[in-house]
Amino acid sequence: MHAPAELADIAADVLARVRDRAPRVHCITNTVAQNYTANMLLAAGAVPSMTISPDEVVSFIAGANALLVNLGTFDAERRAAVDVALGAAGAARMPWVLDPVFIESSPGRAEFARELLARGPSAVRLNPAEFAPLFGGDPVDEAASRVAAACATVVVLTGTTDIVTDGSRRVAVRNGHSLMALVTAMGCAASALVGAALAVETDAWLAAIAAIAALGVAGEIAGSTARGPGTFATAIIDALHGLDHATLRGRIRVS
Amino acid sequence: MHAPAELADIAADVLARVRDRAPRVHCITNTVAQNYTANMLLAAGAVPSMTISPDEVVSFIAGANALLVNLGTFDAERRAAVDVALGAAGAARMPWVLDPVFIESSPGRAEFARELLARGPSAVRLNPAEFAPLFGGDPVDEAASRVAAACATVVVLTGTTDIVTDGSRRVAVRNGHSLMALVTAMGCAASALVGAALAVETDAWLAAIAAIAALGVAGEIAGSTARGPGTFATAIIDALHGLDHATLRGRIRVS
Amino acid sequence: MHAPAELADIAADVLARVRDRAPRVHCITNTVAQNYTANMLLAAGAVPSMTISPDEVVSFIAGANALLVNLGTFDAERRAAVDVALGAAGAARMPWVLDPVFIESSPGRAEFARELLARGPSAVRLNPAEFAPLFGGDPVDEAASRVAAACATVVVLTGTTDIVTDGSRRVAVRNGHSLMALVTAMGCAASALVGAALAVETDAWLAAIAAIAALGVAGEIAGSTARGPGTFATAIIDALHGLDHATLRGRIRVS
Repeated sequence: MHAPAELADIAADVLARVRDRAPRVHCITNTVAQNYTANMLLAAGAVPSMTISPDEVVSFIAGANALLVNLGTFDAERRAAVDVALGAAGAARMPWVLDPVFIESSPGRAEFARELLARGPSAVRLNPAEFAPLFGGDPVDEAASRVAAACATVVVLTGTTDIVTDGSRRVAVRNGHSLMALVTAMGCAASALVGAALAVETDAWLAAIAAIAALGVAGEIAGSTARGPGTFATAIIDALHGLDHATLRGRIRVS
Repeated sequence: MHAPAELADIAADVLARVRDRAPRVHCITNTVAQNYTANMLLAAGAVPSMTISPDEVVSFIAGANALLVNLGTFDAERRAAVDVALGAAGAARMPWVLDPVFIESSPGRAEFARELLARGPSAVRLNPAEFAPLFGGDPVDEAASRVAAACATVVVLTGTTDIVTDGSRRVAVRNGHSLMALVTAMGCAASALVGAALAVETDAWLAAIAAIAALGVAGEIAGSTARGPGTFATAIIDALHGLDHATLRGRIRVS
Repeated sequence: MHAPAELADIAADVLARVRDRAPRVHCITNTVAQNYTANMLLAAGAVPSMTISPDEVVSFIAGANALLVNLGTFDAERRAAVDVALGAAGAARMPWVLDPVFIESSPGRAEFARELLARGPSAVRLNPAEFAPLFGGDPVDEAASRVAAACATVVVLTGTTDIVTDGSRRVAVRNGHSLMALVTAMGCAASALVGAALAVETDAWLAAIAAIAALGVAGEIAGSTARGPGTFATAIIDALHGLDHATLRGRIRVS
């Protein structure tokens, strides 16, 4: 295991690598989240691409460094694109993140998410309501490490406290701000940032911690000046863009 | 009829109920408006969902409290989703709002809107240019109450002054700010807010007044600090989120 | 050729005409860019419409004053809509702008862009990475004027310095701010603004200069107060909306 101070160093270093290498994250994501996700990736130093055309996805994956599969828009074209994209990403041994948006509201989407889980995402970012439809009905906090081990993935369970576990290692990240829950696509953007971190850090557990902590600290900074969820949504982009090594190291709270 | 002071009390109470109950508003809406609409609903205390996949809509409607049908993106998939959604909403006796975006520019879309009107929306929110293609060619201010009565719906005609009528009752809401017309999707968001209000108030006329007035007052507050349409679009979200009972009661202008 | 001071006058005059005439720009553009593009057009004084349904595009084109074809979302429906839209725009002798987004990442998209180029856009706005797939592999700065002449179009090559050339006339526009590269859809919005200018100025070279310079000056103004890319994205909309004749004339830098 890593001590908190060590994790803080690693998280800051991962963010620095994202800025240095500017990885391209290909996002098959929903139309509600596309613009905000792209701006968040740019603010972090990464480069977004977003095509969902099945006949283009292979070309885009070829130039990407990580893939995000977000199920928030679940149309036939995106489903086809996901299948093609995962084939290309698998061939390239490219890391990928699964974000099973709103699967608690749609049995068909939940089934599709379980099929994707079987294809081995590097990380799954989700909220508590999405946990049971994907992993089964046990209490989520206790089950997270077990299912991460069983599925050989990193589970990133976000909420007031964020849990990041790969089955053998588990931390709680206690950064963030309550207004994050009032900005649509914040979770989707978090998943994309996990993708950016995976592009520069092969230990997916460390990558996920870095991304989640950086966003959480940016949220705290934004929350100190925001006058509501509108200015908060803008300020967190500024804060992520301006986040320096010392601030991230000093404010990260993992345990 | 209700006296203005009584309407102010009711509007403030409806907003309080939205915050208290956090109704889920399922929005079949256009891709331009999705993100802004979701953030507006969240700012008001409601919860958005946005899927447009015909095979998912029934599941999403099952967990929703109101439905928005916005025609701003008029693709085949959305048309199919609307039909399925209205079937499910009808079976559940769920309130729904029709927003016939830009029907003056597309005869096919106008015809579809008229078919939807025949299916009995709880409210129709539209601007003057959209009035004639939906309801016929009479002067809109005079005709609004007549068509509301004929169609057994609430007509919400937004502009410099907003008219809300159910045929027998009619008010003019004189809140709002000129910059609202320079933010894309502001009308779409207004329709979604009417949906949120319908979820907590069975009198659709009162619900519509509450939503329109709350947004208008938020616009006035935003306009007092905005430096242009960009900061205005953000500030109105903050203002809607922070709008308290006394401010809404004190600033609402109905007659 | 025009002297810089003359170009500054013309650019300011074109912006004034956009505000005066409020041209409608129909945008077939990608889902990432739609909302931001619409708000930018509104801030400039133009009116956006965005439908991509092939069976509606002719009706929308009939009421529009310029057309934008942006390839950032490259689905089958948009491809069909582009073909229909160009037929209608051609019949109406309507100016149109081609924005070949990300064609360097997709051979099929690049081929489609070359087919569109053969249909005679009034202007092509693109970045250096998109130049070779569209025009061939020569150094972009040297080749821009040659290909503009060969294709009988205006090439708008944006980057740190923006080049605008119609083959016989060529200027460098040296306005703008580094944060423009960190806001997604900024280039897409620039292309839409070129469309708005084309609607009021028949000399496409002058129209493109006006649009690019106005956006660049707005970027400089926004950059003076922004705290990062989030507030910058909002502030540039305010700045474009508030841009007055004297400021644009005084700050434009063409050579």
